[in-house]
Amino acid sequence: MTTTRVTVGPSDIADPRLAERGRRRTDWAERQMPVLRQVRERFARERPLDGLCLGVSLHITTETAVLLRTLQAAGAELALCASNPLSTRDDVCAHLVRDHHLAVYARYAEDVDTYRRHVDQVLAHQPRVVMDDGADLIAVLHERPASGPALLGALEETTAGVRRVRALAAEGLLRFPAVAVNDTPTKRLFDNRYGTGQNTIDGILRATNALLAGKVAVVAGYGWVGRGIALRLRGMGAQVIVTEIAPIPALEALMEGYRVLPMAEAAAEADLVVTATGGLAILGREHFAALKDGVILCNSGHFDVEIDVRALREAALGRESLRDGVEEFLLPTGQRVYLLGQGRLVGQAVAEASPAAVMDMSFAAQALATEWLVRESAGLRPAVYELPAALDAEIARLKLAALGVRLDALSPRQVAYAASWREGT
Amino acid sequence: MTTTRVTVGPSDIADPRLAERGRRRTDWAERQMPVLRQVRERFARERPLDGLCLGVSLHITTETAVLLRTLQAAGAELALCASNPLSTRDDVCAHLVRDHHLAVYARYAEDVDTYRRHVDQVLAHQPRVVMDDGADLIAVLHERPASGPALLGALEETTAGVRRVRALAAEGLLRFPAVAVNDTPTKRLFDNRYGTGQNTIDGILRATNALLAGKVAVVAGYGWVGRGIALRLRGMGAQVIVTEIAPIPALEALMEGYRVLPMAEAAAEADLVVTATGGLAILGREHFAALKDGVILCNSGHFDVEIDVRALREAALGRESLRDGVEEFLLPTGQRVYLLGQGRLVGQAVAEASPAAVMDMSFAAQALATEWLVRESAGLRPAVYELPAALDAEIARLKLAALGVRLDALSPRQVAYAASWREGT
Amino acid sequence: MTTTRVTVGPSDIADPRLAERGRRRTDWAERQMPVLRQVRERFARERPLDGLCLGVSLHITTETAVLLRTLQAAGAELALCASNPLSTRDDVCAHLVRDHHLAVYARYAEDVDTYRRHVDQVLAHQPRVVMDDGADLIAVLHERPASGPALLGALEETTAGVRRVRALAAEGLLRFPAVAVNDTPTKRLFDNRYGTGQNTIDGILRATNALLAGKVAVVAGYGWVGRGIALRLRGMGAQVIVTEIAPIPALEALMEGYRVLPMAEAAAEADLVVTATGGLAILGREHFAALKDGVILCNSGHFDVEIDVRALREAALGRESLRDGVEEFLLPTGQRVYLLGQGRLVGQAVAEASPAAVMDMSFAAQALATEWLVRESAGLRPAVYELPAALDAEIARLKLAALGVRLDALSPRQVAYAASWREGT
Amino acid sequence: MTTTRVTVGPSDIADPRLAERGRRRTDWAERQMPVLRQVRERFARERPLDGLCLGVSLHITTETAVLLRTLQAAGAELALCASNPLSTRDDVCAHLVRDHHLAVYARYAEDVDTYRRHVDQVLAHQPRVVMDDGADLIAVLHERPASGPALLGALEETTAGVRRVRALAAEGLLRFPAVAVNDTPTKRLFDNRYGTGQNTIDGILRATNALLAGKVAVVAGYGWVGRGIALRLRGMGAQVIVTEIAPIPALEALMEGYRVLPMAEAAAEADLVVTATGGLAILGREHFAALKDGVILCNSGHFDVEIDVRALREAALGRESLRDGVEEFLLPTGQRVYLLGQGRLVGQAVAEASPAAVMDMSFAAQALATEWLVRESAGLRPAVYELPAALDAEIARLKLAALGVRLDALSPRQVAYAASWREGT
Repeated sequence: MTTTRVTVGPSDIADPRLAERGRRRTDWAERQMPVLRQVRERFARERPLDGLCLGVSLHITTETAVLLRTLQAAGAELALCASNPLSTRDDVCAHLVRDHHLAVYARYAEDVDTYRRHVDQVLAHQPRVVMDDGADLIAVLHERPASGPALLGALEETTAGVRRVRALAAEGLLRFPAVAVNDTPTKRLFDNRYGTGQNTIDGILRATNALLAGKVAVVAGYGWVGRGIALRLRGMGAQVIVTEIAPIPALEALMEGYRVLPMAEAAAEADLVVTATGGLAILGREHFAALKDGVILCNSGHFDVEIDVRALREAALGRESLRDGVEEFLLPTGQRVYLLGQGRLVGQAVAEASPAAVMDMSFAAQALATEWLVRESAGLRPAVYELPAALDAEIARLKLAALGVRLDALSPRQVAYAASWREGT
Repeated sequence: MTTTRVTVGPSDIADPRLAERGRRRTDWAERQMPVLRQVRERFARERPLDGLCLGVSLHITTETAVLLRTLQAAGAELALCASNPLSTRDDVCAHLVRDHHLAVYARYAEDVDTYRRHVDQVLAHQPRVVMDDGADLIAVLHERPASGPALLGALEETTAGVRRVRALAAEGLLRFPAVAVNDTPTKRLFDNRYGTGQNTIDGILRATNALLAGKVAVVAGYGWVGRGIALRLRGMGAQVIVTEIAPIPALEALMEGYRVLPMAEAAAEADLVVTATGGLAILGREHFAALKDGVILCNSGHFDVEIDVRALREAALGRESLRDGVEEFLLPTGQRVYLLGQGRLVGQAVAEASPAAVMDMSFAAQALATEWLVRESAGLRPAVYELPAALDAEIARLKLAALGVRLDALSPRQVAYAASWREGT
Repeated sequence: MTTTRVTVGPSDIADPRLAERGRRRTDWAERQMPVLRQVRERFARERPLDGLCLGVSLHITTETAVLLRTLQAAGAELALCASNPLSTRDDVCAHLVRDHHLAVYARYAEDVDTYRRHVDQVLAHQPRVVMDDGADLIAVLHERPASGPALLGALEETTAGVRRVRALAAEGLLRFPAVAVNDTPTKRLFDNRYGTGQNTIDGILRATNALLAGKVAVVAGYGWVGRGIALRLRGMGAQVIVTEIAPIPALEALMEGYRVLPMAEAAAEADLVVTATGGLAILGREHFAALKDGVILCNSGHFDVEIDVRALREAALGRESLRDGVEEFLLPTGQRVYLLGQGRLVGQAVAEASPAAVMDMSFAAQALATEWLVRESAGLRPAVYELPAALDAEIARLKLAALGVRLDALSPRQVAYAASWREGT
Repeated sequence: MTTTRVTVGPSDIADPRLAERGRRRTDWAERQMPVLRQVRERFARERPLDGLCLGVSLHITTETAVLLRTLQAAGAELALCASNPLSTRDDVCAHLVRDHHLAVYARYAEDVDTYRRHVDQVLAHQPRVVMDDGADLIAVLHERPASGPALLGALEETTAGVRRVRALAAEGLLRFPAVAVNDTPTKRLFDNRYGTGQNTIDGILRATNALLAGKVAVVAGYGWVGRGIALRLRGMGAQVIVTEIAPIPALEALMEGYRVLPMAEAAAEADLVVTATGGLAILGREHFAALKDGVILCNSGHFDVEIDVRALREAALGRESLRDGVEEFLLPTGQRVYLLGQGRLVGQAVAEASPAAVMDMSFAAQALATEWLVRESAGLRPAVYELPAALDAEIARLKLAALGVRLDALSPRQVAYAASWREGT
């Protein structure tokens, strides 16, 4: 199959009648995304993507729809497929087709063949730029180069996708510039810490309706995600214990007033365990016997291997689903253990992932990175680029402006002092 | 219609096939209710209600089912109707019938006639004690005195019901002793502060998925409920402003580091307003023009009059439902305002009311009050009784024991010192 | 000796040359006491104590001087002696004589005979009202009744003094009305919680310069004082453990996220122990062996018996003073233990007692109670009176006004609703 | 003058009789410095500096004495002068001479000629390594090269000294390797944040005894120092406002629940202003008119220019010293403003600088850097070296070990997973 065999066709979506619901929900998300709104207003005036065809593969959520509205306002022509069949919201697809006339090729829970056909249908639009989430579009473009006009470049949202693109570059195969949108400070500081911090609480409450106040909560890992979770659990009245493998974060946790224990001891005190390490089997078979009866286990790391769910299933004498998102395991040692969301990211599996206010910044990075790529494309090589620090600061500045927060500015005298501080002692 | 025309009949529930789901969900609630579990174990040994017929009118939730299991273990025979047709969970009813053989007369969303017939069916069991929530059973027993054996007394769970019972007593009409379970310290300190504090956060997150960190959140009222909400909002990263009418709570709020402002000024800074005053029109027509575009309004007070919803509806140029529990109002001054849960208690309307861990204490008070009433009934007059302070402390003690928390005890020498401290200076 | 033998004489103070220093320090305290300043402004206009002779026995500190300025502005003539020879600040005495022409009879560290003579010299002024701190003036007035005009009454500041006055009343001996200024809500809520909470931190830092962040700090007792200390220790980054004997406060501590342990276990984890119980030997001989090497012990309760200092001295193999306020004890089990301020109230022994901002409210209660006593004296009997709740609220209101904090007021419609809320359900 | 004219002479200190006091106070500091104690134990076994002559110029405090004990245990011969005449504690000097037989050339408040002679006396020992604080020893060694054996290298503690050394290196003049001990993560994360955070509170309390609870406190700058101060002020009950010039820290402050305002607005609300920016005139002439009557101003930045003290003195109609460390300025607009510690670092000017527990880590870095420099000297060039990251982590690890805190370690399976995570999606 070659891309020439795919013609630009009409959208392929599940149910056009859902458009109104999708519109309303997207409007709500947009209310929480003032940075993108500001970017859109400027884009609408300046039209930096005027006439540019943009091929997009993203999780099709209400927040993504707000990003697409922004790119369209900049003048882009958009063709859209899903980056994961299970995250597609059909109402959003319907809204994007009815109200924005986008070319949308996505259905919730589509099969693999359909998913691949939809990727091809997006590429048949011969986009000049692709926006990717997991690098599937980028990979296809390297396997079966398009016959149309040369790509200006690509943007990649995820860690995993950036890794694939870097691998391409390392082997000398990368055919166009690619921007690693994934790893900007505003994303890590805000999405990981405050976004996941909150949605972890949200997931635990929706799954269990358990009282957090007074609970002994063990947070495994004191990276940005772990810090956010520990902070919010304490904020809800829990007594937080941190486990770590690295001494400097462990010492920081201690100075913040948390207890720091090895997991073998922490597990024995826990009413709640949340893993957030990026590692494997953080709560594993060797800890099961020590767990208290009634302990709640959940994970906020990317993969579902932090709690060793397989070992838990093997060890359990019985399992029972008590509530949506809550599964009881009866251990041979007699305790009942409650696993939330099957050990998957609890804030996404049980709640609604990061709040729009946080995606606002991540997607503003996408929008500004697209503008930057198009404007600078003449000078770029086939290589992986970081988002310029100035754009990152600009996103924070727009967020503050949207929130009505004003900063101080240095006077000329203060600027001079700052430049000459070495003279100070 | 007289009670003599109602015979003791089979249960009247919606769908017996829901029993297994109800059993599982009740089991989950019971996991969070260790005080009731401890009470039940003792009740099972001591059987303090052996053979006693108990007529019960409560919200039929999983937590209530755990209370009923406890009373049954004490030897009581139970007949159950709903205290509100809309709070009845049909799966819980089915579970109580299938697994506990209770006489249950309740269906979700039953009409008023059915509701009244169900009350009569409970009373047809000729209960010796009634457990009430809103005083509907008690009222019927005063309108149409039963022909059977004399009541030992009644227990009342709510503020509103206690008011009705006190009114009966004041007019000299009360026919039996009644215990005001409603107003014990453990209930106020824990349910109001920590229970409602958490379920307000839960309700806001479920309704909006909005990021709380960085939001300016106005909490109207710094009573126990307001304190809990302010504490948890701060714990989620919000910047909290308190409004008050009383100087001492206002000064306490200030000393805790909150800003304290009149509502007219607070409303102009708010990204979120939560009312918790027990009063009327705390956020009213006079504040609408000052509100920021995008502000979220919700209520955690008992009645839905704290935010003047009627005035909001009248003032709005348009309304739109954007998400479940989120209604947008377009004000004549151009702002969009988001009302959660129609201005009703947001933690109940949108989330799941107080966590089982908190109801554990409120319902333990019910169970111990029932035991106390039966044991002491010979000496009681037709009057309103408070729960003895020793029982209240006992509930806290059982909760601590259940949580594995141990206290210090005074030595004889310390007891002597405490008794003679007045000699100290 | 009779009071007639004591003539009204000139002030007896240590060093008039200290007046300027006393004036400055008192001015500083007055800056932090806006309620008293407001009271003084009104008193200066209304002169409610015009010509009244007031005999005063108080700790002679800068804050007391601000109270005396206030009473003088009201028109009172003041005669002053100390309530404790060791708390007298000679610079303040000098200031009060030089700048305010008060009759002052007090010298730092005066001997007992001088102290008694000074009491008599105050009474020789034939005061119509006495303001007492420990009830020494009141006691003398009962032992040797004055020959002059009848007393309108007395005011008593301390717990210990109120106890003595109540004992007089109980035996039917009390000769005039007495106001128990000691025990108003504003005093307990603010002085005990926020005042002692802060000055305990201050005392520990001054004594040790130890880093609180990361320390395991045990707070014995979760009353108002213990709550304030636990809150501030956590605020400085410590990991707080609470010990308690009563279940309801223990449960509250737990819900606030503190660990709750018996002292025997808490002592073994402590880097710092602070006692705040009002009890005896809270940290006693039976805990010594469990203490960690290097643990810091201090007390914030009224008497120096909460840490069993005598037992510690007996047990220790050696003692050494390492810093002002820090004494090292070498235990037979090898640990070194550090006792702050000899086990006396650490915030007073090592720091400067409660901040003026808190004494502002306690002393405003004194001033308003004096005005109330004089105004109402015709209707008062020889009995112990509580400060009327309205005056207590008024103090909080004045404090808020001084801080520029405004409250909401109920509209007539809201007042009506509040009165009729019982109709609500 | 050349170094050959200075002979190695006896110590030159102020008063040998102070030795016992110095010993005691140093013992106290050592109690708080477990990392250095652990380093010393290893050094005593391994003697890594055996026979090495070390020339030291540091602030001569009790913490420094603990460092010197550590270096001596490693086998070093030590010659000591002061890095600043005003920070020299004569009791510590006397202790080091009496009990450790160090060559000490330092007297409190010595004049400049004496200070210089003391530097020369240290260099007359012909040290192989110099440990410097401000680069005065290093500078002399470049102006008047020593005639003795070649230096192995130098260690520099401060930002200002590192700047001078880097300037030497940039001009190609640096004659030996130099380690920039100043800028390790453990120092910045812990000393700046938790050390200065606490000592700022300590300085404010000692100067003012003002109640922090309820105060509106403005923290200028949200770097590590500002974060620590904001956190601790909030912990003491203050209502914190942050001012910033950079958007990302401003947004972080907001997400932590602080208000963020420009200084012009913040100053008008402040009861307390603390500057921590490293900049110039952060609170300057343009803000004076807006200040509230009674505002307290202080600085925690390195230089005393953050509050424009000169402008304040010029603007004031009058000045008065009210308490040690508190100066009142009367502004032409009528407000009284209170400046603490003359606008110098309040935690050092009024309190006791960073706690020993924090200097423990900074000085452990000095000790380990010295060992590293000596061991690696054969392979080092005349250049500026950073402390290896592994040594930094080692310090954190030793601190944790000293505190009895244990971490988890990865299993071989977990190590393999971590290395291969890129395969994960």
